[in-house]
Amino acid sequence: MNSSALTALQRAAQHQQRFDAAFEKYFAELAGNLDGARLGRFTPRCLELLADLSLRGGKRIRVALLYEAARLVTDEDVPGLLEAALSLELLHSHALVLDDIIDDSPVRRGGPSAYYACREDLPGHPQTALGLAMMVGDLAGFLALRVLFEADLPAARKQALLDVQLAVTTDTVVGQILDLERDVVSPADDGLLETVCEYKTTRYSLLAPLRLGLLAAGEELAGHERSLHRYATLAGLSGQMRDDYLDLFGDPDVTGKPLGGDLRAGRLTYPVRDLLAATDGDEHDTVKAALGNPACTPRTIERVRSIAYRHDVHSRLQSAIDRYAEEASAEAASWRRHWRGDAVAVFEHLPVWNTTRVK
Amino acid sequence: MNSSALTALQRAAQHQQRFDAAFEKYFAELAGNLDGARLGRFTPRCLELLADLSLRGGKRIRVALLYEAARLVTDEDVPGLLEAALSLELLHSHALVLDDIIDDSPVRRGGPSAYYACREDLPGHPQTALGLAMMVGDLAGFLALRVLFEADLPAARKQALLDVQLAVTTDTVVGQILDLERDVVSPADDGLLETVCEYKTTRYSLLAPLRLGLLAAGEELAGHERSLHRYATLAGLSGQMRDDYLDLFGDPDVTGKPLGGDLRAGRLTYPVRDLLAATDGDEHDTVKAALGNPACTPRTIERVRSIAYRHDVHSRLQSAIDRYAEEASAEAASWRRHWRGDAVAVFEHLPVWNTTRVK
Repeated sequence: MNSSALTALQRAAQHQQRFDAAFEKYFAELAGNLDGARLGRFTPRCLELLADLSLRGGKRIRVALLYEAARLVTDEDVPGLLEAALSLELLHSHALVLDDIIDDSPVRRGGPSAYYACREDLPGHPQTALGLAMMVGDLAGFLALRVLFEADLPAARKQALLDVQLAVTTDTVVGQILDLERDVVSPADDGLLETVCEYKTTRYSLLAPLRLGLLAAGEELAGHERSLHRYATLAGLSGQMRDDYLDLFGDPDVTGKPLGGDLRAGRLTYPVRDLLAATDGDEHDTVKAALGNPACTPRTIERVRSIAYRHDVHSRLQSAIDRYAEEASAEAASWRRHWRGDAVAVFEHLPVWNTTRVK
Repeated sequence: MNSSALTALQRAAQHQQRFDAAFEKYFAELAGNLDGARLGRFTPRCLELLADLSLRGGKRIRVALLYEAARLVTDEDVPGLLEAALSLELLHSHALVLDDIIDDSPVRRGGPSAYYACREDLPGHPQTALGLAMMVGDLAGFLALRVLFEADLPAARKQALLDVQLAVTTDTVVGQILDLERDVVSPADDGLLETVCEYKTTRYSLLAPLRLGLLAAGEELAGHERSLHRYATLAGLSGQMRDDYLDLFGDPDVTGKPLGGDLRAGRLTYPVRDLLAATDGDEHDTVKAALGNPACTPRTIERVRSIAYRHDVHSRLQSAIDRYAEEASAEAASWRRHWRGDAVAVFEHLPVWNTTRVK
């Protein structure tokens, strides 16, 4: 790893640490700022579940992107960045809580999902538990907008930030709907995977932090939208493919997840799409039978993996991951013409770094 | 019915008609204004379900309150009122979609609930159907804020309106959580019923439209908050009690709902609380056994009703409904000192009218 890559990582780690401390403070103060937060037993519990999930937050890539986007323009403190970061991460918690209900997932970020925590709290009351988990997610979504709305910023600047974030909320819903559709419709529907990635990852995990950071720092986006979008798309695709790659070819000890989870859940990921296209006869049938079969054994997963290795699915996917990451880096490099070099370097290194870290 | 009561009803009906036409236009244009709205099959379907549910909208009491609140101050057109009305009704759709998931309700407003419509669309995919229904609700919540945010208003005015509406979003979540708690905790927890009503009905169905209408018309709320809150609380309690009353003592041909639905669902409504307090021995046991028993037969509901009539639960509740409505009317009458009489008359009559119409 060269020294500028190291600096990029160190800077990202700094953003993460500072943000985590601020996020903890946000939740500590929330009970005092939110009307009704202390009423009854369930409301404090819902807030606690939201805080727990949100504070088990991993690498905070969105936060790093946001702060570094502002640094593209200035190295001074930028008002509104913290509120934008809180908004992004609360919106992410919102999406995670809902994802875990839809996927019926017991675990999230190494702890219980909000949904399963509610179910454990209320044995014999499954609908109440479902309702409470939905309310945890609901609250996170509304708080995400509220925290940005309450930022002490000039009206025009705040309007610009909220414009971005409100578009993100509906984009994310559309992305989630497309994701649900992907798991039900025929695999032949090409282009859907890229569209899911655009709505569910690119716009919200990459483009939104970039735009929010630049806007908060006072930059006009008009001349840059195309390049920002290209960067976000390439980095997003690379990251999504890496996620998909790890489901079949990753090391469970590193990822913390069993192999083949996406396959069992019936997700038409990039490797699965390639597998279905590259195989026929028995091999094709094996893949199809495993796809969407929750009872699929480790041995079947192992068979699917062998088929994938035999058809070079892993190396084609790895090449695509690397190629998109390199193209994203090249796009970021072009920003040196008008933006600050130390922050540009972070964006150049992030896609490569991101491919192993996203989520 | 006297002539000013008739005028109040006519005015409310006019607001409803005008709003329904505007709401239809909003949904007709939404597909063109929402990025990704036409992608795939599921996204257009989710938008359609949201529009269908929202446009089967009943009496639009919130909209009437909103417009009449502005009329307390002026009879000129008030910018931002339409967006505030759209925001209120979209937020209401959000709450209804989520309610129907939590309650597993097949029917809403005389048509299928969004949840059951999704389930019928996708037999054999219950989790996908749940996810889609959740997304219909999610979208409604975010669109509710977006439509108000995009109103063409001076920054300070818009900020004031959004302050109210953002507080409503989190109040409603707290109200829903308290409502869920009410159905699980012991009936002895007094005060919880009133708090649920405050958060789930008063603030959002009554106080928010009042505050939004006055703010949009340029009124300062500072000197009026106490009276507005008192009015909303009394009218809200009266309306909530009437709802609860109808569940045990209503005419199913008029309400469109079978008797005892709240009882079967285990809801500690006002009549149920009174029943549990007024009875002992076998009668008490009968009520307790029926409460929260989904398999409870019409004959058991009939027995509970007889017990209620025997202990005068119906007349005590009816008296409370009338008393609160009268007190609300008296509060509104005091507004004649500083606000326009024709609109004050509407607020005077609304609690009485509301008691038979709410929902």
